[in-house]
Amino acid sequence: MQRLEHRACFGGWQDVYRHHSRVLDCEMTVGVYFPPQAQQGPCPVLYWLSGLTCSEQNFITKAGAQRYAAEHGIILVAPDTSPRGPQVADAEGYDLGQGAGFYLNASQQPWAGHYRMYDYIVHELPAWVEADPAASDVRGICGHSMGGHGALTIALKNPDRYRSVSAFSPIVAPSQVPWGQKAFAAYLGDDRAAWRAHDTVELVKLGIARQLPLLVDQGDADEFLDSQLRPELLRQACEATAHPLTLRLQPGYDHSYYFIASFIGEHIAWHAAALRGE
Amino acid sequence: MQRLEHRACFGGWQDVYRHHSRVLDCEMTVGVYFPPQAQQGPCPVLYWLSGLTCSEQNFITKAGAQRYAAEHGIILVAPDTSPRGPQVADAEGYDLGQGAGFYLNASQQPWAGHYRMYDYIVHELPAWVEADPAASDVRGICGHSMGGHGALTIALKNPDRYRSVSAFSPIVAPSQVPWGQKAFAAYLGDDRAAWRAHDTVELVKLGIARQLPLLVDQGDADEFLDSQLRPELLRQACEATAHPLTLRLQPGYDHSYYFIASFIGEHIAWHAAALRGE
Repeated sequence: MQRLEHRACFGGWQDVYRHHSRVLDCEMTVGVYFPPQAQQGPCPVLYWLSGLTCSEQNFITKAGAQRYAAEHGIILVAPDTSPRGPQVADAEGYDLGQGAGFYLNASQQPWAGHYRMYDYIVHELPAWVEADPAASDVRGICGHSMGGHGALTIALKNPDRYRSVSAFSPIVAPSQVPWGQKAFAAYLGDDRAAWRAHDTVELVKLGIARQLPLLVDQGDADEFLDSQLRPELLRQACEATAHPLTLRLQPGYDHSYYFIASFIGEHIAWHAAALRGE
Repeated sequence: MQRLEHRACFGGWQDVYRHHSRVLDCEMTVGVYFPPQAQQGPCPVLYWLSGLTCSEQNFITKAGAQRYAAEHGIILVAPDTSPRGPQVADAEGYDLGQGAGFYLNASQQPWAGHYRMYDYIVHELPAWVEADPAASDVRGICGHSMGGHGALTIALKNPDRYRSVSAFSPIVAPSQVPWGQKAFAAYLGDDRAAWRAHDTVELVKLGIARQLPLLVDQGDADEFLDSQLRPELLRQACEATAHPLTLRLQPGYDHSYYFIASFIGEHIAWHAAALRGE
């Protein structure tokens, strides 16, 4: 493990680490923000999953989340969005391959092997984080776009492992939109049952994890709203199964980090209520 | 004038414009944040001057300043750091030429002509901003590193034009450090009197503009602290002339935007007190 960055920030430290992932069989970079409270004892951890094309840098430099994490005493962990490196398969488009792991375990070639972001996020990364005595095993998860899909699906499939979940502009029904269909066909093949296991709307329809309320913010000027995101499908599924959902259409906001920065404070307060009982 | 970006942010709008600068004889990009209050009537304007290598993007994407501007009802204007374009002279290093305008009017070739950032910031940019009815002519100025030098020198030379000034990690004595000596020799030639007119410590020693208190934050882990920044020279000059100075050495902080993000809220509150009487 190597510490690449170590920067004072809101009384705590914004670090970036490189560690070897056994699951992904490559080196991975991870941003970790330690709030000032981490010096006194273990803090709960909020995992942030980024969207297409992102590395760990987008969230840690643009979201302004450290201020709120410092207020609430929450560690922020922002991993990269896929396995990386010259030995890792890739594709031409921005929406498949490196930078586009979609938080699942690929079964198809050439992706199977390295592309196991589901196992990395659910198991290996928390184990690595919680080896630090500053981090407790109390976990929340949040993300944006492809990472919103990742946060919602992972939490719904593992309600025993996450106390809270929220998302910005998530791909709620990847099986029904171009980004998801392209990625799922490549990573998972034609087996639609495998697709359903990574589709938020399909998971909600199963009626699982209803103890986990969902907070979703979506800009109504988002350029991907109708083609890729389709939050009304999530609303319908939650209504049909009485899954608690707070879905907010934010007027004027787009798909950018300016949107995330504007509301990440409310998301962190939401998570703090579940993670710290605030 | 062309609007390149228009993004909802904290209830207001983060815009980026391209406009023709007559003073610099080139196209310039400018970030402008309009807080929600700008819809009701004219708001005071805080000008942000960035450091070496920066464009308008660094501040608007990384500082997290919009939140505080929205709280206080202040417009933020973040210009580029030099004239730009293929017809504009440049140099190999990051610390001279494009991205390194040093907020002065160059008298030497090949820089004279385009490199007139002093006139641009003091006169042309405010006139352009204040043509918008949302902006008042009540101005504050703030900046980082080379831009901290710009903010302090410009405010000290124009106390009738700026009600407030502050800086992060400013180059307070450019005549005495390598960054400033290289730039001043290139842009201003050997005339040391011309150098003094753009040197914060020299301006303070003249005892001018003592009605304008200075707020300066400096990280004590800043990698440029002893070689380029030397805040103790500012402290000595202010003590010698009874110039009001709040100089804070912030333990652990470096030269990055993580430092700026951590304290920009306090700077904007400081400016709001002068600009809005808060």
